[in-house]
Amino acid sequence: MSTPPFESGLLEASLGAFGVVIDTGGAPSDAVDGADLRIDGQRLWRRLMALAQIGATPAGGNRRLALTELDGQGRDLVTQWARELGCSIRVDAIGNIFMRRAGRLDLPAVMTGSHIDTQPTGGKFDGNFGVLSGIEVLSTLHQAGVVTDRPLEVAIWTNEEGSRFVPVMMGSGVYCGAFTLASALAAVDLDGISVATALDAIGYAGSDHIETPACYFEAHIEQGPVLEAHDKVIGVVEAALGQRWYTVTVKGMEAHAGPTPMAMRRDALLCSARLIAEVNAIALANAPNGRGTVGWIENYPNSRNVIPGQVRFSVDLRAADETTLGGMDAALRAACARAAADAHLAIDVEQVVYFPAQAFDATLIASVRQASDSLGLSWMPAVSGAGHDAVYVARVAPTAMIFVPCKDGISHNEIESAEPEHLEAGCNVLLRAMLAAARAPAA
Amino acid sequence: MSTPPFESGLLEASLGAFGVVIDTGGAPSDAVDGADLRIDGQRLWRRLMALAQIGATPAGGNRRLALTELDGQGRDLVTQWARELGCSIRVDAIGNIFMRRAGRLDLPAVMTGSHIDTQPTGGKFDGNFGVLSGIEVLSTLHQAGVVTDRPLEVAIWTNEEGSRFVPVMMGSGVYCGAFTLASALAAVDLDGISVATALDAIGYAGSDHIETPACYFEAHIEQGPVLEAHDKVIGVVEAALGQRWYTVTVKGMEAHAGPTPMAMRRDALLCSARLIAEVNAIALANAPNGRGTVGWIENYPNSRNVIPGQVRFSVDLRAADETTLGGMDAALRAACARAAADAHLAIDVEQVVYFPAQAFDATLIASVRQASDSLGLSWMPAVSGAGHDAVYVARVAPTAMIFVPCKDGISHNEIESAEPEHLEAGCNVLLRAMLAAARAPAA
Repeated sequence: MSTPPFESGLLEASLGAFGVVIDTGGAPSDAVDGADLRIDGQRLWRRLMALAQIGATPAGGNRRLALTELDGQGRDLVTQWARELGCSIRVDAIGNIFMRRAGRLDLPAVMTGSHIDTQPTGGKFDGNFGVLSGIEVLSTLHQAGVVTDRPLEVAIWTNEEGSRFVPVMMGSGVYCGAFTLASALAAVDLDGISVATALDAIGYAGSDHIETPACYFEAHIEQGPVLEAHDKVIGVVEAALGQRWYTVTVKGMEAHAGPTPMAMRRDALLCSARLIAEVNAIALANAPNGRGTVGWIENYPNSRNVIPGQVRFSVDLRAADETTLGGMDAALRAACARAAADAHLAIDVEQVVYFPAQAFDATLIASVRQASDSLGLSWMPAVSGAGHDAVYVARVAPTAMIFVPCKDGISHNEIESAEPEHLEAGCNVLLRAMLAAARAPAA
Repeated sequence: MSTPPFESGLLEASLGAFGVVIDTGGAPSDAVDGADLRIDGQRLWRRLMALAQIGATPAGGNRRLALTELDGQGRDLVTQWARELGCSIRVDAIGNIFMRRAGRLDLPAVMTGSHIDTQPTGGKFDGNFGVLSGIEVLSTLHQAGVVTDRPLEVAIWTNEEGSRFVPVMMGSGVYCGAFTLASALAAVDLDGISVATALDAIGYAGSDHIETPACYFEAHIEQGPVLEAHDKVIGVVEAALGQRWYTVTVKGMEAHAGPTPMAMRRDALLCSARLIAEVNAIALANAPNGRGTVGWIENYPNSRNVIPGQVRFSVDLRAADETTLGGMDAALRAACARAAADAHLAIDVEQVVYFPAQAFDATLIASVRQASDSLGLSWMPAVSGAGHDAVYVARVAPTAMIFVPCKDGISHNEIESAEPEHLEAGCNVLLRAMLAAARAPAA
C-alpha cells in the first residue's frame, strides 16, 4: 500500500543521536533529519483498519483465531506490506514470521512485534497495533531513506491468545524455550486439528532459524484503565507482573439449611467467602502492584436450601517481583490453613499456573521514557498485568514495552477501542526507541 | 397385615386420664389399661419397610414422586391397612386422604398424619413415619379394643415434597387455604401433566369435604442433627421457623484481572463474599434459632482471570418468631445497602419466598412433653427448621409435632436412616398425646 519513494542512491550520513544512514535518493535532506522523523499516523490507522477487515465481526470487532484461514490472510497482507518495503521474510518452525529490514552492519537486529491472532470476540488493536507499529516504523524509515546500523525486524508471533490452541503465547514461548517445539506442534484444537496441520494448511510451516535479537520492543494497548484514569498517553512499562494461579477446594458437609443450627454447620461456601475476602486483603497489603482475583467459583450442590458441601474457586495472584509474589503465595496458604482449622473443613490449594515476574531492561526503559519526553508526550511508569509475547522474549533479550491507552480499559472485547492520536504517539515512541537501539556500539 | 383381634362386644369403661372406652370382646381387661398401652414397634417397622418396597431404589432409598403410579400403590397399601382396622376412607379434591376411626361421640376428630410422597432420591422415613405412626396408633387401639371419645383420623397429605409439582406442601396448603384448589390442580410437571390429570390417573381425585379437626399432631424424623448431638430421643417441637428467601443480584463491572489495579475494581464476587459472611453474622446475632444460609450462587462471566461483573445468590433467613425474622430481614437489607455504597455497586434484593414463623399450640406441646416424661423418654425442646404439613394445618387447628432423631441428621437422601427404637418411642408419644386429646371436654 505504500510505495517506496526512493529508488536509488545511498548517501551515508550520521543522524546525531540515532547513528543512521540516509538514503537521500531524490529527497531533500532536511526532510529526513532523524530527530524530526515522525511516523504517519493516518497510514498506521489505515493499515489497522485494513487488517481488521479480515475476520471483521458485525459488532465492529475481530475474530481471527490463530492459524485459521483468516489468520493466514492476515499474515499474507502484513508480509506483503513488508515486502513492499524491501524486507526479507523468514518463518520459523512454529510459524513465527520475521520481517527484516537490512541494516548497515551485520549485527543482531533490533526487533519489535506482537501478534495478529485475536480472541473469538476480540478487538482491532490488541496485538495488531504492535505488529503494524513495527511495519509503520519500517515504512517511515524506508520513506525517509534511513538505513540503520543494525537490522530492524518485525515479528508476528504465532497464537498469542491461546483461544484455539493452548498454551497462550505459543510462538514466543517456543522461540524463547519456555516449552518445546514438539509439544506446541502437537497441540490440538477442539476439532482435533493440530498446530502442525494448521500451519501447513495456511502455508506458514517454516524452517528458518532466527538468531537472538539485540533487543526487543513491543507496543501494545494497555488493556487496563490506568493510563486513561491518569490522563497519560504513554505507559513506560517497567515489568510484567508475575502470576500464580490456584484452584482452591473447600470440602465441608452439605446439610439442610432449615434444621441445621449455625453451630453445627460445615459450610463450604461461607468458608470460601471468607477466603475470597482474604485474597483481596492479600493484594491490598502488597500495593501498588499486588493483585488478587477470584474470577471463577463452583458451588455444590448449589441449591437454595442446602448448606454447600463443596466449593472450588480460582485464585489469581500477581505482583511485580518474585519476592512479593512469593510472600503473597505464603499468605494465601496461611489463610487457607487458618480457615480450615477455624471451620473444621478440608481445604486444598493447588497451584495451576506460574509465570515468574519479569522485569524489563533498565536501559531500554530509560530509552522509552526519553523518547516520550523528547516527543513532548505525557507518560507514567506502568506494569503489564497481562501476559504478552514480550514477557517471553525478555528471557532471551533485553526487552521493553510501550503502552497506549484503550477506551475504558476494555480489551478482549469487540468494543475495544483506541484513539488514533494515542496509537500514533505510541508508534512515534517506538520509532525513536528503535532508532536509538539500532545504533552500533561505539568502536 | 394386622387382623383385628376383637370381633364383638363393647364394654364402655373409663381409662383414667384418657377417657376412652374399652372394647373387651374376649381380651382380659388388665391388658388394656390405657396408661400401659404401647404401640407395636415391630409392626410399625414392618409397615415402614413394606411401604418402602414401593419405589425402592438400589441404594436403599425411596423414589415415589407425588401422584405417580407408585404413589398410587403406596396410597392403596396404607388405605388397605386402615380399612382392615375398620376405618372409613375419605378423599378430598386435592387428593388428601383421611382415614377415620370412629369415636364414641360426634365431635371434631383428633388428627395426625404426614405424607408418603418422596424426593427423587429420598429416604424411607421422611413423611412415611408420620403416616404409619398414625396407622400404628389406630392398630394399637383397635387391638386393645379402645374406643376414644373423639374420632381419630390419619391424613396422607398430597405432594408435600414438591419435587414433581410445585408448590411444596400442596395438599395441606389447599386444605388450610394457603392457596386455591384451582391453582394447585392446574400445576404441571415437567412433562406438562397437571395435578388434576395425575390425581385422576391414580384414582385419588376425591370430592369429600373434610371438617376442621379438633387438633393435629405430626410425628416426623427431625431431618437435622440436634437430637442426635444431644443424645435425646424426642424433640418436643415448639415452633416452625419462619422463612424468608431472597435472590440478591450484585452488579459490578467485569475487567481483566491482570491490568486492573485493586482500587479501580468493581468486583461483584468480592462484594458478594462479604455479604455471604454478613448473612452468617445476622444469623449468629439472632441465636439460638436464627439461621442464615447462602446455598446457591451464580457468577458471571466466571472466568479465572476476569473480575466478576455480576453475581446472583440466594439468601435463606429463618427465625422462630416474626419479630426476629423481621429484624433479620432489615439487617440483610441494611448490609446490602452498605455494601453497595462501599463498593460502588448496584445491589438488588428480591424476596422470593415467605413463610411466617408458626408457633405450635401450648397445650398440645405440654401434652407431648408429658407423654415423653410418662414414658421415661429423654426429650428436649425443638424447633422445626424445615417445612411440614403441620405448619399449614397449624393455621386452622391447634397443632404440635413430635421429632425423633435421624442418623447424622441426614434426610432427603437415600441413606436417610432412623433407629427402630426411636421410631417406636416417637409413636408411643403420639399415642399418648392423641389419647389425651381425644378425651371429650368435661361436661
